[in-house]
Amino acid sequence: MASISELGEFGLIKRLSKDIKINNSSTIKGIGDDAAVTDYKNKQTVITTDLLLEGIHFDLSFSPLKHLGYKAVTVNISDVYAMNAIPKQITVSIAFSNRFPLEAIEELYEGINLACKKYNIDLVGGDTSSSVSGLTISVTAIGEVDKEKVVYRNGAKPNDLICVSGDLGGAYAGLKLLQREKEVFKANPEVQPELTGYDYILERQLKPEARKDIIEFLEKIDVKPTSMIDVSDGLSSELLHIAEESNCGIRIYDQKIPIAEDTNKFAEEVLIVPTIFAMNGGEDYELLFTISQSDYEKVDVSPDITVIGHITEQSKGNFIIASDGTEIEIEAQGWNHTK
Amino acid sequence: MASISELGEFGLIKRLSKDIKINNSSTIKGIGDDAAVTDYKNKQTVITTDLLLEGIHFDLSFSPLKHLGYKAVTVNISDVYAMNAIPKQITVSIAFSNRFPLEAIEELYEGINLACKKYNIDLVGGDTSSSVSGLTISVTAIGEVDKEKVVYRNGAKPNDLICVSGDLGGAYAGLKLLQREKEVFKANPEVQPELTGYDYILERQLKPEARKDIIEFLEKIDVKPTSMIDVSDGLSSELLHIAEESNCGIRIYDQKIPIAEDTNKFAEEVLIVPTIFAMNGGEDYELLFTISQSDYEKVDVSPDITVIGHITEQSKGNFIIASDGTEIEIEAQGWNHTK
Repeated sequence: MASISELGEFGLIKRLSKDIKINNSSTIKGIGDDAAVTDYKNKQTVITTDLLLEGIHFDLSFSPLKHLGYKAVTVNISDVYAMNAIPKQITVSIAFSNRFPLEAIEELYEGINLACKKYNIDLVGGDTSSSVSGLTISVTAIGEVDKEKVVYRNGAKPNDLICVSGDLGGAYAGLKLLQREKEVFKANPEVQPELTGYDYILERQLKPEARKDIIEFLEKIDVKPTSMIDVSDGLSSELLHIAEESNCGIRIYDQKIPIAEDTNKFAEEVLIVPTIFAMNGGEDYELLFTISQSDYEKVDVSPDITVIGHITEQSKGNFIIASDGTEIEIEAQGWNHTK
Repeated sequence: MASISELGEFGLIKRLSKDIKINNSSTIKGIGDDAAVTDYKNKQTVITTDLLLEGIHFDLSFSPLKHLGYKAVTVNISDVYAMNAIPKQITVSIAFSNRFPLEAIEELYEGINLACKKYNIDLVGGDTSSSVSGLTISVTAIGEVDKEKVVYRNGAKPNDLICVSGDLGGAYAGLKLLQREKEVFKANPEVQPELTGYDYILERQLKPEARKDIIEFLEKIDVKPTSMIDVSDGLSSELLHIAEESNCGIRIYDQKIPIAEDTNKFAEEVLIVPTIFAMNGGEDYELLFTISQSDYEKVDVSPDITVIGHITEQSKGNFIIASDGTEIEIEAQGWNHTK
């Protein structure tokens, strides 16, 4: 196999893009010119971008590169779905030091291409570069949406129901598990990491999915959420964004927060209240949204959507209600990417 | 002044985006939701992205942060102009280590905002993050263009004239000067860098402009180039891209390549043939394009566009002709970002 320096930058781009197929009619021209060209006809478009750095957002000692590539795509398109839009194109820029052989970069792109296939997205551009140290990945995703269907964070109204898809806290539990086993391994490299039986939380951390199915379901039942956001920084942080943008208050119930059995089990093991994982963990990439009470019955048929509370007047503040009725104020999370 | 850790990520984003104004009607929603929302009506859109890393693409020991922010924008929108499109929105993601105080990040954004203002672009999104070391900047630019006006790299035909805007090699001369003075300073910190009299090449390197004016001129004289690319990697590399994508040959004349007096002067000083700067230097962000011979007279009125050669049949190969008539094959540049 040729080395990266033998291929050169343009050779590398050619090699990485050789299997790319264009699937969306809105993609007019993909990789290969100064810019990609797209045509959204009479739709609006949404644009979102994320920058992922080794040592900050991921740890290659326990993140396989293929999973990392997949995750880099899903975390971005999750933001597109959170606008009630359908992702259509992504660009991917990567920078990597010379400790990465061509095989490693190809593995990363395998994951990227897998996600593109699964979510029917076209990889239309990007940039490859060397870096002084470590791996950096920057993804920009573009999606399309009918003008009247865009959902912002700012439309929640008092009495709207607060809903969340799937379950929360699992990704953070997976991260804590991986970090724990890494420490054990560092202390004694003879000991093999103990990861069996933790499949669910590991997958939540290493290979999260974006909730395309929820957006499709909402379309099918003809429900447009009044506000929506994806859960990337933890439920607390996302609820506060909705409260701030919609000028409203939040009231959710601890007991209602959906948490998977495996997440509960791990939380018990490490003596942490599982709600903490859900509220402050992040990286679940579930959708948090609000609906009018009149849409409750339509949404309730989905086993994958849970109503966790409701919107109040702004003056009532933002609270989570414990099972004994105690009201705890929801607090913002600080600057903390590694958590 | 508050520190970045006191502000937190969301506080920092708020602070950096507080002065941002939306100027384009295609921008429906800028910073502040999961994604930006845009509406290009019946136009096509072009998307391009660049990833810039400290130590690879820039050296903060001689690049002021404000200039760097400005340049990060111009190099991206240069790709948009190279499609004959008009840039409308950018997203900017940055990651930086704790050695950067808030003032430094604000200075970087000052440059970004300055470029946005000058080129009438809306900053609509991005991401801020900490990094293990160094500064990373990722910019994605989106532009719009009438469907029938998009110019690709692949439309050059035999006998088309090869044109270039402005002059070439200056940015590379500026880089070589800055690197030379840095070495002198490292060897003896008492010696002040000798940069006076080199204003032009320094500006070409530190604060390049994108050729918006050329795109506007071509529109005004109603000339659509048959192919176009921006000069980011050096004239050789760009010519070969056009040759490859258009399945044609290249014939340019050494004596015709526009090189500024200051670039020539510096090249003489360091005993390098100035053509080398132009062919292999890069970062000039001029536009290289081809036009039908019938458009020659219309283009010729511009003092800012030079015809440097013409397109041939592919079988004739890619050559630069020296003043004595010697034919030298144009060669590709390798993987080399720092040059």
